[in-house]
Amino acid sequence: MDTTTKTATARERMVASARELIQERGVHGVGLRDVVAHAGAPRGSLQHYFPGGKDQLVAEALTQADSASRRTVRAARAEGADPVTTVRRILASWRDLLVAEDFRRGCPFAATTVDTSVANPALRAVVSEYAGAWHDDLAAVLENGGLAAARAATLATLVQASLQGALILARGHRSTAPLDEVETELTSLLEALLPG
Amino acid sequence: MDTTTKTATARERMVASARELIQERGVHGVGLRDVVAHAGAPRGSLQHYFPGGKDQLVAEALTQADSASRRTVRAARAEGADPVTTVRRILASWRDLLVAEDFRRGCPFAATTVDTSVANPALRAVVSEYAGAWHDDLAAVLENGGLAAARAATLATLVQASLQGALILARGHRSTAPLDEVETELTSLLEALLPG
Repeated sequence: MDTTTKTATARERMVASARELIQERGVHGVGLRDVVAHAGAPRGSLQHYFPGGKDQLVAEALTQADSASRRTVRAARAEGADPVTTVRRILASWRDLLVAEDFRRGCPFAATTVDTSVANPALRAVVSEYAGAWHDDLAAVLENGGLAAARAATLATLVQASLQGALILARGHRSTAPLDEVETELTSLLEALLPG
Repeated sequence: MDTTTKTATARERMVASARELIQERGVHGVGLRDVVAHAGAPRGSLQHYFPGGKDQLVAEALTQADSASRRTVRAARAEGADPVTTVRRILASWRDLLVAEDFRRGCPFAATTVDTSVANPALRAVVSEYAGAWHDDLAAVLENGGLAAARAATLATLVQASLQGALILARGHRSTAPLDEVETELTSLLEALLPG
């Protein structure tokens, strides 16, 4: 799905709008009317396209959310990019987005975890699957860089967690400094651990 | 404030309830009726105690939220605890809470950041101040452990971010494994960097 094309359907625009609003306000902060207005969709179209209501819309928004960081990690694995380059690319994409949008949007999966994971097991499962795939691609990048599989798995968790936490700190402080500082420390750590 | 004592006032119970519910559902997911019911407070008491409405209640819930991790870091700084012990204590307290409560509650500051930081600058400022104090205490622990001040500051950001991210991953996966893996990696990193 490419929401920047003029041919995006009303349905596609509503899914994209739901995702953007969740990134800004969390799942509970997004009303169906907000989504319809944000997408410029006709009133009543939500019921037509999403008979399952908000749960269906949010699940689709997350399932189809092919985030910049997810794409970056998957591409890095596919092309055999080194771990430091991979981490820098992820942070660069977040930094650009935060600055361009005045710290408006964060990670939709983190937002869903913190406000909906208890009440909605189906959405939590979507989050868990996404985070697991992201982690496993990153672990593959680390293994490709020379780490043993077990170490690559635990280190991938540290990297994933620290990037996720840095994004939240950056929004909380309205500053990209946490991203910069985590990049400095992760680069130093990865260079110390990896051969060559 | 100790919400376990029988002498907690209705006002204190409402503040504590607001915080607990924010930890579970985010700020947008918590209605004032939920807080009154959770606190077992008389109807109408909310308006009496919190004439500023939900904004006032949430701000107090965050301001008074002296979280386990915040207490742990502050105590570690005061007593001169070493960095590895400090990190382990924080993770142990979260692990215990997640298991005891079936992964119900996360960090109220992360929850507020992801769903309210854009719309409510006053709450964002509370979050930023809290996160900054937590960071600075942790940096002092690292400096006390033998790191130069500048390095202690950036490493404290990595530790803070990775702990925050691990807590979100743990709730997303309903597993304490992310906490365990981050502990393993941070312990290894800290032991490599610190003298003695």
